[in-house]
Amino acid sequence: MRRPSKGKTSPPSADHPRQPRKPHWPRRDERRPPRSAGPATDAVILYGWHTVKTALENPARRIRRLYATENAARRLAEDGVTLAVEPEIVRPDAIAQRLAPDAVHNGLLAEADPLPAPELEELAPTGIVLALDQITDPHNVGAILRTAAGFAVAAVVTTARHSPEATGALAKAASGALEYVPIVTVQNLARALEALRERGFLLVGLDSTGDADLGEVALSAPLALVLGAEGKGLRQLTRATCDRVARLDLPGRIKSLNVSNAAALALYVADKRIANSE
Amino acid sequence: MRRPSKGKTSPPSADHPRQPRKPHWPRRDERRPPRSAGPATDAVILYGWHTVKTALENPARRIRRLYATENAARRLAEDGVTLAVEPEIVRPDAIAQRLAPDAVHNGLLAEADPLPAPELEELAPTGIVLALDQITDPHNVGAILRTAAGFAVAAVVTTARHSPEATGALAKAASGALEYVPIVTVQNLARALEALRERGFLLVGLDSTGDADLGEVALSAPLALVLGAEGKGLRQLTRATCDRVARLDLPGRIKSLNVSNAAALALYVADKRIANSE
Repeated sequence: MRRPSKGKTSPPSADHPRQPRKPHWPRRDERRPPRSAGPATDAVILYGWHTVKTALENPARRIRRLYATENAARRLAEDGVTLAVEPEIVRPDAIAQRLAPDAVHNGLLAEADPLPAPELEELAPTGIVLALDQITDPHNVGAILRTAAGFAVAAVVTTARHSPEATGALAKAASGALEYVPIVTVQNLARALEALRERGFLLVGLDSTGDADLGEVALSAPLALVLGAEGKGLRQLTRATCDRVARLDLPGRIKSLNVSNAAALALYVADKRIANSE
Repeated sequence: MRRPSKGKTSPPSADHPRQPRKPHWPRRDERRPPRSAGPATDAVILYGWHTVKTALENPARRIRRLYATENAARRLAEDGVTLAVEPEIVRPDAIAQRLAPDAVHNGLLAEADPLPAPELEELAPTGIVLALDQITDPHNVGAILRTAAGFAVAAVVTTARHSPEATGALAKAASGALEYVPIVTVQNLARALEALRERGFLLVGLDSTGDADLGEVALSAPLALVLGAEGKGLRQLTRATCDRVARLDLPGRIKSLNVSNAAALALYVADKRIANSE
């Protein structure tokens, strides 16, 4: 499992579950899955109504433990959600204790296996793929995944290093999108982009220094939209690998948007352009 | 000054400056501005490179104190930023101490007066105004302000209650936009919208239950785009006051976006439509 960057510009989010805050949490070591130890089997933490409900409804997601308040358990039953594991009914405090003070959990927390991640070679050469070049903020990556699911993006490609893990605050911000959008983790983004190009993908990077407005760039599916980190933008090699580097022209005094907002605009433009050209 | 909502669904952000974490912070009570006590004269906290630099460059923003690391002070000098107050050179730790652990301050923190807020009646009936119906998350409101500045929005109208104050995490997420986009604070949003309509504004609400896709709704300036809180959407009276309530149709499995991403798409659509109709 990927670990969040410990870099200076994007420390782990305060919203991320914290180990030292679990003293009163029930430990049921005997119910742990019989797997070899190691980071790859760490449980993913999912909390919040949409995030947990969508995970419960995803047959590919194995839930290890489900903690719910009485109210949340009742709502799940009312919504006809089938539970593969018996929920442990807890007070809201018991869930809040595992999360940052500002985390909104809606009475639901699940420990789950990470979803199986497809290999790059398994991606069908259709539609739109988003590639994230070391975007480290879990809230931003979560919001990008949510919007990616809104635009039926085929997959999100991220780097193994300098990317937040698909758990906690990221999963909450994704609001269920983790269950819909496959995340392909690669060691080397430039090589991954080359592999996509060989399979027919057009590679369009987004950067404020791009040579044309995205609205004026010819776009066609299969398309890989490549987004850089805020501040740093696309890395040099990523940029050099793209077929085109486009910018998003804005009429106002601020020329650079939050990266998830930029992703939303890019997906909107690309989706309309590809739909109209088909 | 507005206070963040203490409501269950959006507690104050962990990113917000915390009082108890200031033990080693220099107190210079003699330099406090000679004003009457009370929340209206509380200092606004601005941190981060873009946020502080843009504030320093705004002649309407009165900076009370500026704390900078040596590196940050040098960068300001290199960028030719004129400082109305002498910066106090501090170590990065001294700034970090006042902020949440995940706050990225880039070596700059300023205490400033809140900006003078225009009255609703002072808004010229041109362009686009954004109205926020009790959006409580400071990161979302900050990102919305940033995107609003990107689209040259004339003003953002917020409610006095259930809106985060224009400081700390909100200011950081706004990335300088506080200096560009006037924030009009109103007691009653429905009455404010009625007042805008009387002055010629078209009132278009955004809600997933809207009766048409925003791309199909006739839009004209002056336009007020009204955004509801995530989860709750537009309040009933807000909705009833709008001339039209539109939705944003999405092709994917997730039908509801992060509110700042939805705001970005709505502004993009409205800006293009209005520009093309002029």
